[in-house]
Amino acid sequence: MPEFIVILQEPKHEGNVGAVARCMKNFGFNKLYLVNSCELGDECFKRAKHASDVIKKAKAFENLMSVKKDIDFLVGTSGIVNLNDKHHIRNPITPRQFVSYAKRLDSKVGLLFGREDYGLYQDELMQCDLLITIPANDEYPIMNLSHAVAVILYELASADLVFRIKGHRKTSKFEKEKLFEHFSRFLDQVDYPNHKREHTQILFRRIIGRATLSKWEFHTMMGVFSRAINKLEYNKKMLSKKNND
Amino acid sequence: MPEFIVILQEPKHEGNVGAVARCMKNFGFNKLYLVNSCELGDECFKRAKHASDVIKKAKAFENLMSVKKDIDFLVGTSGIVNLNDKHHIRNPITPRQFVSYAKRLDSKVGLLFGREDYGLYQDELMQCDLLITIPANDEYPIMNLSHAVAVILYELASADLVFRIKGHRKTSKFEKEKLFEHFSRFLDQVDYPNHKREHTQILFRRIIGRATLSKWEFHTMMGVFSRAINKLEYNKKMLSKKNND
Repeated sequence: MPEFIVILQEPKHEGNVGAVARCMKNFGFNKLYLVNSCELGDECFKRAKHASDVIKKAKAFENLMSVKKDIDFLVGTSGIVNLNDKHHIRNPITPRQFVSYAKRLDSKVGLLFGREDYGLYQDELMQCDLLITIPANDEYPIMNLSHAVAVILYELASADLVFRIKGHRKTSKFEKEKLFEHFSRFLDQVDYPNHKREHTQILFRRIIGRATLSKWEFHTMMGVFSRAINKLEYNKKMLSKKNND
Repeated sequence: MPEFIVILQEPKHEGNVGAVARCMKNFGFNKLYLVNSCELGDECFKRAKHASDVIKKAKAFENLMSVKKDIDFLVGTSGIVNLNDKHHIRNPITPRQFVSYAKRLDSKVGLLFGREDYGLYQDELMQCDLLITIPANDEYPIMNLSHAVAVILYELASADLVFRIKGHRKTSKFEKEKLFEHFSRFLDQVDYPNHKREHTQILFRRIIGRATLSKWEFHTMMGVFSRAINKLEYNKKMLSKKNND
């Protein structure tokens, strides 16, 4: 079963942090990470009500990078959705769709929520393995922070992620990074255009994030890309040798 | 389709009324009835953000009796559940179960939420046609008022009862087959071993099946493999030409 951690990125109003803690406890979640948070005082504890223990145990981080070291799978949330397929960085799934992915995960899953005013920045979204958005009214889709947290935790709690679903061993974070590195080397070898490169790498990361690979699938895909990389490197060497002959 | 009206019974904190208005607008609801409400001032409008229109159009009532004259079906909400069947007044269904009832209703449906501290009183619950409760943690099941509203409206909106949720265009079966064909040609070019081939192709098909690609992702992955295939074909031609020289 996955272990869920709620991560707030630079929350600005302590009242919201308290409200988040309360709805975490309402739905049986207790791990809260705070990245570069505002000060937490009376207002926070007032809003947290009987969930002050969640606040007291919350871990503080200076930046998202250090959080990522402690998390296996990072899920971003965004109220701003781009329905243009090309903007795949903001190409999300719904909380309900996420539930079926979550069932397949067996690791530390971070649920990342952005600032009250600007949400998550582009470079933060780019670090996520998956993006979810709450389907909302086009006229006014931006929810209050703690309300968005409530809806997503409600979905996870309702999905009864209480029993262990047996499945294949999943790839580790380390293995996934190796696959992304391989994919990047592969793009080098096919002279992939620089201006498309970053987008394609993120797109690949999202596809793999949604598919959640087994160990066996990981090794097979590594093998496929290795073979292509070796072949292309060998060709390059042979061609330059022939040219020099 | 039913018409939904959010009814707050004696709300005590104006901030909560504002927060309710905001999440109503987030999920495409706009009719708010207030029964014997607290005064609504700056704090209420501050929390409502871009949903001040919902507050301004809200109807005030003195008691629940007068509301009932204007409603066809009254749904109560409660955080306190009694699992003893005999206590049928507090014997509720979940929001998700409610959705299937709601689909059959074709009338004015009132969603009644109680006071922040005491919820709905027994005599108020007795006037309801149906009772719903949000499944929550036994240790601390009582949610903040506006968070409970958010979760229930989210369920109704997600059931497409309020507006239709847009999604990304997905790849067609035909496109997916093209991608698999491309992947197969790519394996040819990297001299992929025959005995592994079928397994790897099925494995790739499964990964793509789980990831459900958007059109844009499909085109990008097609581009990546095309580039590799072309490069490898070109290399092969050049190398055999050099060998013949």
